[in-house]
Amino acid sequence: MLDTLLKHRSIRKYKSGEIDNNTLNTVLSAGIRASTTGNMQVYSMVVTREEAIRKQLWECHFKQDMVLQAPVHITFCADFNRFNKWCEQRNAVPGYDNYLSFFTAAIDALLVSQNVCLAAEDMGLGICYLGTATYNARRIVDILQLPRGVVPVAAIVIGYPGEEPVLTDRLPLEAVVHYERYTDYSAKDIDRIYADKEALEQTRELLEINKKETLAQIFTDNRYKKEDNVHFSREFLDVISQQGFMNND
Amino acid sequence: MLDTLLKHRSIRKYKSGEIDNNTLNTVLSAGIRASTTGNMQVYSMVVTREEAIRKQLWECHFKQDMVLQAPVHITFCADFNRFNKWCEQRNAVPGYDNYLSFFTAAIDALLVSQNVCLAAEDMGLGICYLGTATYNARRIVDILQLPRGVVPVAAIVIGYPGEEPVLTDRLPLEAVVHYERYTDYSAKDIDRIYADKEALEQTRELLEINKKETLAQIFTDNRYKKEDNVHFSREFLDVISQQGFMNND
Repeated sequence: MLDTLLKHRSIRKYKSGEIDNNTLNTVLSAGIRASTTGNMQVYSMVVTREEAIRKQLWECHFKQDMVLQAPVHITFCADFNRFNKWCEQRNAVPGYDNYLSFFTAAIDALLVSQNVCLAAEDMGLGICYLGTATYNARRIVDILQLPRGVVPVAAIVIGYPGEEPVLTDRLPLEAVVHYERYTDYSAKDIDRIYADKEALEQTRELLEINKKETLAQIFTDNRYKKEDNVHFSREFLDVISQQGFMNND
Repeated sequence: MLDTLLKHRSIRKYKSGEIDNNTLNTVLSAGIRASTTGNMQVYSMVVTREEAIRKQLWECHFKQDMVLQAPVHITFCADFNRFNKWCEQRNAVPGYDNYLSFFTAAIDALLVSQNVCLAAEDMGLGICYLGTATYNARRIVDILQLPRGVVPVAAIVIGYPGEEPVLTDRLPLEAVVHYERYTDYSAKDIDRIYADKEALEQTRELLEINKKETLAQIFTDNRYKKEDNVHFSREFLDVISQQGFMNND
């Protein structure tokens, strides 16, 4: 178990082999054992294998090659639709059309997604999260025909790895852990915490290719730009609202 | 690994024994191997052992006994504070004061939290998620002195289990998995999906104790009420804004 956690790598190249139903069911069955709020299980997983639909999803995920290569695509959704229907059929009045309910359901979906990923990796499969699920949530809603009460919050591709990447760097443990209360970072702390990452050969190459002075600028100016973040913030909040989760009065 | 996933139970009674530093570090080190968006690692874990602070947190978490019993409390936070400081020290202008950035950071925090839980369980520890972290986020911000850019999104307690609960029921796999696209639920689907849960002895007892006609009513009328959800929705959105994540223009 610890070994599976410690050796996680995102896989961005896949072999063409399919995942058989037994393997996939084992992975999904491990997924649903994750904790959910009040055991309400207010999430859904949409498992897409059909190439025509995966091609539409690929467009939502900025046309990354791996999305077409990997045989299975799973979209994890916050989902109060099923629970609301159950309440309505059982003479109960659901009050889950608000932001807290959305966030609660998103937590359920995300914990399940991590279980699914780890189960898959334990079975020799490779996975990669697609951070783009929230960016183009509106188009994903259309493609997957998600009804009111359902919002995509994460997506992954799964398949047999076609590459063996090295372990990705991480900040030292002290960078992300605080003891007792939060201790804010001094300028010296920041220098120390990011020193190893900034010294990587890979960082030097990135600076050269992107003609940038610092690694941070590659994030702010190229990868995660303010204008894009603002645009996708509005889009995602609109989708949350459109799907019925913003009645907070 | 699969075994650890499949045997997960939330633990609500703990032995008094401490968790030694080596064990805790192993657990946290497995946590930080989780995928994060763009490897930005925009989250923090606040590990609280001091009883006086845990007592304050216990009040935020609706005074559940286990929060006082368990020796370690971890609050998982969406955290762009560290990343923003790094950008500013490196002549880069961060554009991460918006909702998408908050949600991205929340995903990071939640995937890490699930890794931490699984690593802990694999080492013989027990865990329980506290769904209340988002409800009383404002007080948690104060208690843990979380600066701008940091929002608590989940909390867990960890310790050595003082109980061996049975496996919690789950809806059948077909209830939470959709193939290709989302297939909405018919009234018959809902009846079938919830039949086993409704037939549990535990459900019968709950109905009797709560004097309710259906299990769904226990959720809507007692556990997760509309008025509470609406109140905590506004509170949580306020905290997200107060911590600097709602500049979406």
